[in-house]
Amino acid sequence: MNKIEIALLGLGNVGKGVWHIFQNNKEEITRRSGYDIEITKILVNDISKERGIDIPVGVLTTDIEEILSNDNIKIVVELLGGVHPAKDYMLSAIENSKHVVTANKQVIALEGTELLDAARKNGVLLYYEGSVAGGIPILKGIEESLTANKIQEIVGIVNGTTNYILTKMSLENMDFDVALKQAQDKGFAEADPTSDVEAYDAVYKLAILTSLSFGINVDVKDIYREGISNISSLDIKYAKEFGYTIKLLAIAKENNGSLELRVHPTMIPIAHPLANVNDSFNAILIKGNAVGDLMFYGQGAGSLPTGSAVVSDIISILRNDMTLRSISTVENKAASKLILNQQAYKSQYYLRFSVKDMSGVLGEISSIWGKNNVSISSIIQKDEKQGIVTLIIVTHDAIEGDINKSVAEIEHLDSVYNIDNLIRVEKLN
Amino acid sequence: MNKIEIALLGLGNVGKGVWHIFQNNKEEITRRSGYDIEITKILVNDISKERGIDIPVGVLTTDIEEILSNDNIKIVVELLGGVHPAKDYMLSAIENSKHVVTANKQVIALEGTELLDAARKNGVLLYYEGSVAGGIPILKGIEESLTANKIQEIVGIVNGTTNYILTKMSLENMDFDVALKQAQDKGFAEADPTSDVEAYDAVYKLAILTSLSFGINVDVKDIYREGISNISSLDIKYAKEFGYTIKLLAIAKENNGSLELRVHPTMIPIAHPLANVNDSFNAILIKGNAVGDLMFYGQGAGSLPTGSAVVSDIISILRNDMTLRSISTVENKAASKLILNQQAYKSQYYLRFSVKDMSGVLGEISSIWGKNNVSISSIIQKDEKQGIVTLIIVTHDAIEGDINKSVAEIEHLDSVYNIDNLIRVEKLN
Repeated sequence: MNKIEIALLGLGNVGKGVWHIFQNNKEEITRRSGYDIEITKILVNDISKERGIDIPVGVLTTDIEEILSNDNIKIVVELLGGVHPAKDYMLSAIENSKHVVTANKQVIALEGTELLDAARKNGVLLYYEGSVAGGIPILKGIEESLTANKIQEIVGIVNGTTNYILTKMSLENMDFDVALKQAQDKGFAEADPTSDVEAYDAVYKLAILTSLSFGINVDVKDIYREGISNISSLDIKYAKEFGYTIKLLAIAKENNGSLELRVHPTMIPIAHPLANVNDSFNAILIKGNAVGDLMFYGQGAGSLPTGSAVVSDIISILRNDMTLRSISTVENKAASKLILNQQAYKSQYYLRFSVKDMSGVLGEISSIWGKNNVSISSIIQKDEKQGIVTLIIVTHDAIEGDINKSVAEIEHLDSVYNIDNLIRVEKLN
Repeated sequence: MNKIEIALLGLGNVGKGVWHIFQNNKEEITRRSGYDIEITKILVNDISKERGIDIPVGVLTTDIEEILSNDNIKIVVELLGGVHPAKDYMLSAIENSKHVVTANKQVIALEGTELLDAARKNGVLLYYEGSVAGGIPILKGIEESLTANKIQEIVGIVNGTTNYILTKMSLENMDFDVALKQAQDKGFAEADPTSDVEAYDAVYKLAILTSLSFGINVDVKDIYREGISNISSLDIKYAKEFGYTIKLLAIAKENNGSLELRVHPTMIPIAHPLANVNDSFNAILIKGNAVGDLMFYGQGAGSLPTGSAVVSDIISILRNDMTLRSISTVENKAASKLILNQQAYKSQYYLRFSVKDMSGVLGEISSIWGKNNVSISSIIQKDEKQGIVTLIIVTHDAIEGDINKSVAEIEHLDSVYNIDNLIRVEKLN
């Protein structure tokens, strides 16, 4: 049996998962990879820190050079997160002819093109299955199993924290703040939840999915982003009345040769498979022109699930005998696609208004919609309190630019106190 | 661009799908495979038959030797179905150093070991993604992406026909016969529906999934099989009262070092993701010791979805430069596992009885359960008609042998007219 040495950069949540998987599934990993794999170095900030796992003496190091300059180490597993110093370490490893595996969505979304180019030039592999949706093998699914298809659409629940919060709000009638607090207590949400709640995390993942599926390099700034902090219990309740549930969706969609790229809270029909993806689970729906609708569902984060993706990537590299060419965004590259401006998107829209309790309000609002080519699918008027009436409108398919124009005009009406919320509705047919 | 010739054996539903995918997605397939692929021969029974597609002159042939003896043909795609003559043709192709792709579950489930051995000896690849769950990339998922895991359990809805029938019975209150007729009219069910309805089809698929996941060669005779023809509207209705829905599940499960292998109608909680897999869709849930629960969902049959799997297999072979070793059941082989006898399975059970309307019946039945170590979770007694009372019992977890013993004793009670049905209940935790 050939021996092979690998190194981990970082020993946090995912790093520990990788370590445990090598301990617990040693026999399977050896049989399936064809190699006796040993983790001989792990880069950490503090060697003396108590970690609750038993690492042999000499494995932990604070010196990246002990890894980069060691010719026996053939694969470097980057689990530091963030762009710096992760990117520099990865580039150095690649230049030293080491294969690289990472679970770092940020560095792949922002610097993936450069890193993959470097890997190609140096004849090594860069795999990153763990960077999107944890243990769900969505990237390999796209790269290896959907190759017969033109991919037309990707719709994903790719952030476990926000899905946990929305599930609690929806199924247990919790308020946003309470649900967020619970997610933090359970370790699903960070102390600073901005990256999850405001959907930056989901944007990185959508950028990676889009690059692979549509063969283009995506600038994350081209992705429309809206988080879930504006979703109130009231919206969840009204969504139910219309037969919808609210999910934070990452969407990449062909639209007449252009691409829509957007991440926002979305109302979807309660009977749709994505509507039943609850708690911290992730799911990704892909539409291919041959395969039709395909959904992958599983744990999108966590020590062992993400570790599963990382270790499977290591095994894939070894199975490929380290000679297989790097399959990347660039090799899949299609004719460069125009990314559609948010104003040009078409969708249904749910709007919630606070208006004065007086006759003629509905007429004023309706005439503005009509003028801007927006037609109304349903209107619900809720009991007034102290002269304020809640008006809920769901439109038919409309252009986002027309919606925004209408909203700006409606905002200025004397009879309208406030536009409380706007949420997109997708039928997902 | 290197050109490569391939041949199809058979031009039925899936064969036409493969043809159409090569027409429609030519550019993607060329880019992703690195080859200009041409289908130069197609084996058919009757060249003059009207097929509604435009095949160039000289491509159709009734002579298998035109394919097997043609050294320019590098990949043979077997789409005949059944064991004979498919197996012989595949073996000959392999011996003539051709790679083989198939969507034929029967030949892989029954003759896969011999075929894969032959492929290995001849240094060619045999891929069969299309043989299980159509377009869903479940086999590659197991072989390539879950390699870091000990797989503990597979639970699948792998037959679209029966799932369509059960969905219609459940959501539209159709009777079995009506739903079957509708499935036949829509082309989901064969004129002779035995293979689907009596679960032979699902057994083949479970055998293939088990071989890959647990690394053993499965004899289909070792798989417990029960179809859906005994499921009545009444059972569907009572299942709902208990919060369950009925699905035909294919189950492979670790049980203390042994394996449970079984296909039968099963009650599962309505909130479980598998319970919401409707119509002819398929879904497969896999539990790995690192990744946790993972589900793949999609179209399990049909011309284009199965064609998608077949064409992706062809591309994988070409990407592997035809030199990658064949990854197969045998290479994944674990210590041979004992397959558990059906009598040793543990499950909850739903039983429906017709009993006499007299006092003491429940006591008699209960004492038999008690004597055989079966405890009762719930009992519902339904209105009597003409002296007959319907009694529905759901047990706690019990050994199937104990259930069978109890049922045999209960059947002989004077107060019991009939045991109308027995359906297993899985909580799928």
